[in-house]
Amino acid sequence: MASMGSRIVSLLTTGKYAPAINFARRFSVSHQQWSRQAKVGFIGLGLMGGPMAVNLIQKGHSVVVYDLSSKATEHLQDEGAEVAKSPAEVASKADRIISMLPNSEHVRTCYTADDGVFQSVLAGTLILDSSTIDPNVSKEMAALAVKKGAVFMDAPVSGGVPAAKGGTLTFMVGGEEQEFEAARELLSAMGKNIVLCGRVGSGQAVKICNNMLLAITMIGVSETMNLGMRLGLDPKVMAGTINTATGRCWSSDTYNPVPGVLPNVPSANDYQGGFLTALMLKDLGLAQNAAIATNSPTPLGAVAHQIYKLMSNTYLSERDFSSVFRFLQEPQKKEEDN
Amino acid sequence: MASMGSRIVSLLTTGKYAPAINFARRFSVSHQQWSRQAKVGFIGLGLMGGPMAVNLIQKGHSVVVYDLSSKATEHLQDEGAEVAKSPAEVASKADRIISMLPNSEHVRTCYTADDGVFQSVLAGTLILDSSTIDPNVSKEMAALAVKKGAVFMDAPVSGGVPAAKGGTLTFMVGGEEQEFEAARELLSAMGKNIVLCGRVGSGQAVKICNNMLLAITMIGVSETMNLGMRLGLDPKVMAGTINTATGRCWSSDTYNPVPGVLPNVPSANDYQGGFLTALMLKDLGLAQNAAIATNSPTPLGAVAHQIYKLMSNTYLSERDFSSVFRFLQEPQKKEEDN
Repeated sequence: MASMGSRIVSLLTTGKYAPAINFARRFSVSHQQWSRQAKVGFIGLGLMGGPMAVNLIQKGHSVVVYDLSSKATEHLQDEGAEVAKSPAEVASKADRIISMLPNSEHVRTCYTADDGVFQSVLAGTLILDSSTIDPNVSKEMAALAVKKGAVFMDAPVSGGVPAAKGGTLTFMVGGEEQEFEAARELLSAMGKNIVLCGRVGSGQAVKICNNMLLAITMIGVSETMNLGMRLGLDPKVMAGTINTATGRCWSSDTYNPVPGVLPNVPSANDYQGGFLTALMLKDLGLAQNAAIATNSPTPLGAVAHQIYKLMSNTYLSERDFSSVFRFLQEPQKKEEDN
Repeated sequence: MASMGSRIVSLLTTGKYAPAINFARRFSVSHQQWSRQAKVGFIGLGLMGGPMAVNLIQKGHSVVVYDLSSKATEHLQDEGAEVAKSPAEVASKADRIISMLPNSEHVRTCYTADDGVFQSVLAGTLILDSSTIDPNVSKEMAALAVKKGAVFMDAPVSGGVPAAKGGTLTFMVGGEEQEFEAARELLSAMGKNIVLCGRVGSGQAVKICNNMLLAITMIGVSETMNLGMRLGLDPKVMAGTINTATGRCWSSDTYNPVPGVLPNVPSANDYQGGFLTALMLKDLGLAQNAAIATNSPTPLGAVAHQIYKLMSNTYLSERDFSSVFRFLQEPQKKEEDN
């Protein structure tokens, strides 16, 4: 993987693609020579992508969008976006493209299909993919972009739907340092923390590593709190002690999975909303893929993956991932909707 | 367990043991009627107990000590302590007793043997056991203390040897609220955070729950950092991102296990010092005992126990527990001392 990344990097940094770029765009995209009138393409208008695209429009960008759902595109049209009929049409009209798609295969299709972005992408285009996918797929797309004289960076997000709506997302960016300023300028219309994590694929790598650790700490807090409560401890006293001791973590002090310990978290609302178990399962699968590909031992990550797999066979699949506390508890007395 | 705790509590709170207490001590120990000239007994003068006892002396307490090691007692004698020949002799001379012993069996022997504390404990004595042991053993000792008209509270610590020396330990106390003030007054000679966690055994319960979560987060951070590094990420950049994101935890932001990420932690010093793998293994065994006794699922805690068990078969047994990062890494190039 490292050597593949290095090859891409050397293509990017030695300027081998530069001759393919037309006069107006022959410099690095970081030179910000785009016209303010040029369009930003946005592909994927779901729960996250929809509000992100709206923020772009509200910050003054001219936006052309594509989504399979006509309901989604109509909503963006009402907000002032132009609607394209395919990713290829988006690419033909934009010199910056953002995509926000569910998984690796959606991304591959969006870029490489017959009506995909790479059919008509303009040389010099800056592509930012905010999907959470396999880092290898990000590298693959970056290599294909180079052949078109475009630049592809991975830029997955954290913060969820509330941060997408509020324009306060964290973007974890993988790409070349000399292109980062251009990416940062565009992404700051949708987020407040824009972090360069390394070369292409690094944003994905940080995201899936962070989320693997998040799953581990969430399960760890859940089993610890359940054990302590069965030993007779008061959950608030226990959380209060842990939060000032060495067990301290975000899953305990900010997003505690035990109902009643914290207000305004999903556990206080029957685990409605938040970050779905099904999505955590997807991220843990990506982490396990990466662990296998790099021959890395992840004993707790592997068990976490299995636990979320088992949870996803229940009604908790569509609840917040902190519902692992309920999954570990004794059988619920009331029948749950299933 | 809960019902056993409740029985002890009702004995304590209904005052059934009060008639056995002599005139001078017929009130709750929390009335602080001890003479300032009365002695504090201290049993167990190891790496933790030694400096704790020294702090008691330096804060003006008159102290009588016992330890199997004559070297340990001689050191305390030099500091001004009286030396007893047995736990029973300590008990005959003190109206407050603190014990700091390696494990449950040591505690049982210290209190119940022929020359143990309960052979000669004075009615009204306040006993604080700072060992980290099975909460059931704490409850068992508390029940026996009641029969002698004494009060037993569990008061395990966190902070390690540096905090023991500096008098900045955190004490997690299990016992009755009306006795807590007396315990707090004495313990504050050796620590700065004295937390009442609940009834007897609760201090142990919080301690082993916290340490189980600590082991889980430390292994989780180690496998996450190792995976990310193998994906090509810079460990400092990765830790920096995680520490401001949802994977944030003490094991990452305060005690990072990857050499070079943080200064002044054991990983920066070849994992020397700190909290030994062998001790974490002990605490994880206590957590698993508690989980089995209460029928609590602890999938990650069980794997963590096994990992520290495997580590303890290597030279890492006597290194800091954060050396789990090294355990997960690829085989070391240099031969390690074994």
